[in-house]
Amino acid sequence: MTNTTRQVIFAKRPRGWVSDDCFEIRDVAIPELADGDVLVRNIYMSVDPYMRGRMNDAKSYAAGFELGKVMQCGAIGEVVKSRNDKIPEGTVVTGMLNWETYTLVKGGDGLMPVDPKAAPLPYYISVLGMPGFTAWYGLLKIGEPKAGETVYVSAASGAVGQVVGQIAKIRGATVIGSAGSDDKCAYVTEKCGYDACFNYKTVDSYAKALHEHCPKGIDVYFENVGGKMLDAVLTVLNQHSRIALCGLISQYNLTEPEGIKYVQSLLINKVRLQGFIISDHYDLFPEFVNDVAGWLKSGQMTYRLSVAEGIDNAPGAFIGMLKGENFGKQVVKLGDDPYAA
Amino acid sequence: MTNTTRQVIFAKRPRGWVSDDCFEIRDVAIPELADGDVLVRNIYMSVDPYMRGRMNDAKSYAAGFELGKVMQCGAIGEVVKSRNDKIPEGTVVTGMLNWETYTLVKGGDGLMPVDPKAAPLPYYISVLGMPGFTAWYGLLKIGEPKAGETVYVSAASGAVGQVVGQIAKIRGATVIGSAGSDDKCAYVTEKCGYDACFNYKTVDSYAKALHEHCPKGIDVYFENVGGKMLDAVLTVLNQHSRIALCGLISQYNLTEPEGIKYVQSLLINKVRLQGFIISDHYDLFPEFVNDVAGWLKSGQMTYRLSVAEGIDNAPGAFIGMLKGENFGKQVVKLGDDPYAA
Repeated sequence: MTNTTRQVIFAKRPRGWVSDDCFEIRDVAIPELADGDVLVRNIYMSVDPYMRGRMNDAKSYAAGFELGKVMQCGAIGEVVKSRNDKIPEGTVVTGMLNWETYTLVKGGDGLMPVDPKAAPLPYYISVLGMPGFTAWYGLLKIGEPKAGETVYVSAASGAVGQVVGQIAKIRGATVIGSAGSDDKCAYVTEKCGYDACFNYKTVDSYAKALHEHCPKGIDVYFENVGGKMLDAVLTVLNQHSRIALCGLISQYNLTEPEGIKYVQSLLINKVRLQGFIISDHYDLFPEFVNDVAGWLKSGQMTYRLSVAEGIDNAPGAFIGMLKGENFGKQVVKLGDDPYAA
Repeated sequence: MTNTTRQVIFAKRPRGWVSDDCFEIRDVAIPELADGDVLVRNIYMSVDPYMRGRMNDAKSYAAGFELGKVMQCGAIGEVVKSRNDKIPEGTVVTGMLNWETYTLVKGGDGLMPVDPKAAPLPYYISVLGMPGFTAWYGLLKIGEPKAGETVYVSAASGAVGQVVGQIAKIRGATVIGSAGSDDKCAYVTEKCGYDACFNYKTVDSYAKALHEHCPKGIDVYFENVGGKMLDAVLTVLNQHSRIALCGLISQYNLTEPEGIKYVQSLLINKVRLQGFIISDHYDLFPEFVNDVAGWLKSGQMTYRLSVAEGIDNAPGAFIGMLKGENFGKQVVKLGDDPYAA
């Protein structure tokens, strides 16, 4: 076993789009373990849109990344050294770890053991982890779709969107999506059961596309992108509709936000809009896992991953995800996965 | 008794600001009563911001006014002719009536008898009517202020705002308002118990004024105005804050809405924003009346009216209210009030 961990350091704050020079890669010695500590060999790490907010100096809903320090992320790995009786060597764990090959976790704090044979390892940081939980909570606890209602999901093939649409279908809704390529649209309609999906990059007008695909209007909007898309949705909302405000990825790399014009729709249509961050709701995590693990097992739900290889490619995978170049949930494979099929 | 009613007719759709020529005044014969009908002599009528939306061709949350027809409004009056045993002559009633001196009500439908000695008659179409109910519902059922939280109310001295602030004080909140003159600000701080109020017409910046007056941030925003004010509020919101979206009066007379830029605040601060229209919630009217009539009786609540005289002045009172020229809830006195002190 190596004595070093290869890390991605937060080197420079982006202004607008994130670029390669925001990151530096370095090898550092792995410190000695004290009593209670464990060393995790990270196998997969997650790159997520919310991380862009953490790179800003301004407050976001997650604490900011510190310049000069290693970046953080959700990850899954195996314990390769342990001075903690509760987390012996060989345990597979998930938690908030780092963009690096090995992470020393003080006291083993925040690690959650998982069964590596119950699901592919990347699922624990995606469909059965934070992004899946975000989809489940936002749709069911904020959107509250009823059978026969119309649910619209932007970023429909993304880490969160593909789960949202499938749950909405299970609940009997009509589900319309949008995504950034014809292939992504084909995936959500053919594999995820979406009733329709349009390529937002090739339509003349978002509002026109929404009116065409949602002839009965929109009852639930699961918002992942913001900006012009939100403004278009406001023109198609039904009375008493709900907006689960999950993300605004179209805005994160702008130096000035686009904003929205049709605020009056929120009044006239008596809309409920709720911003949320999933970390407030972990009391419901067991209920979520029970639902989604069940749907995956029964074949009612599928999930698509986009896997980059190696820690050196983590910055590129992150930047590509912000630009929509990933197809499915973006993760980075950091080392050998002994449980892979 | 006269055989004619003097009416305000909706003569022309406004584009932008409402002008006098949107209205015509005419005298028409009062029709004969059929079985079940009653004739109401209107004593006070209400002019309200939502009426501006009803003058547009586009859909609003209330049905549009019809060109060439008499305008509608909340009003209070006395029954002067009746062919309805349940509503005898002399009964004082409120309901959705017309901008006119006498209204024939088919079958007596929708009329609610009130006790003319329990409160001044204009109160039944203001603090004890739709505007007061709007304030009570929006603040308590959407805003849900807790003791010690900061509540901010725009249009603080208006029909709704003055009630919102007083209820928020009763609930133990810190209450900050804004209004369009120093006199209005003095009224809400000296008479309604607001902790502070700023004149939005004379401050350098809404956001700066809000930061100064709300040093602990805003937990509940009771939104009456929209546009730039909403955008400024978004920069001062606390985590898990609530916006009761009641009105957007700054936007109603614009040909293009201003919109808002800082949508991201709704996400980062996990804000709940709820648009509402009080007509959806009349099941709670008895609870509202019980609360507010009690507070008025005990002296915990006061209410300021602005009374215009005569049906011919109704259009001017309405236009003035849209421009903020009223000071307190604008009503129009249409005839003799036998119960006036």
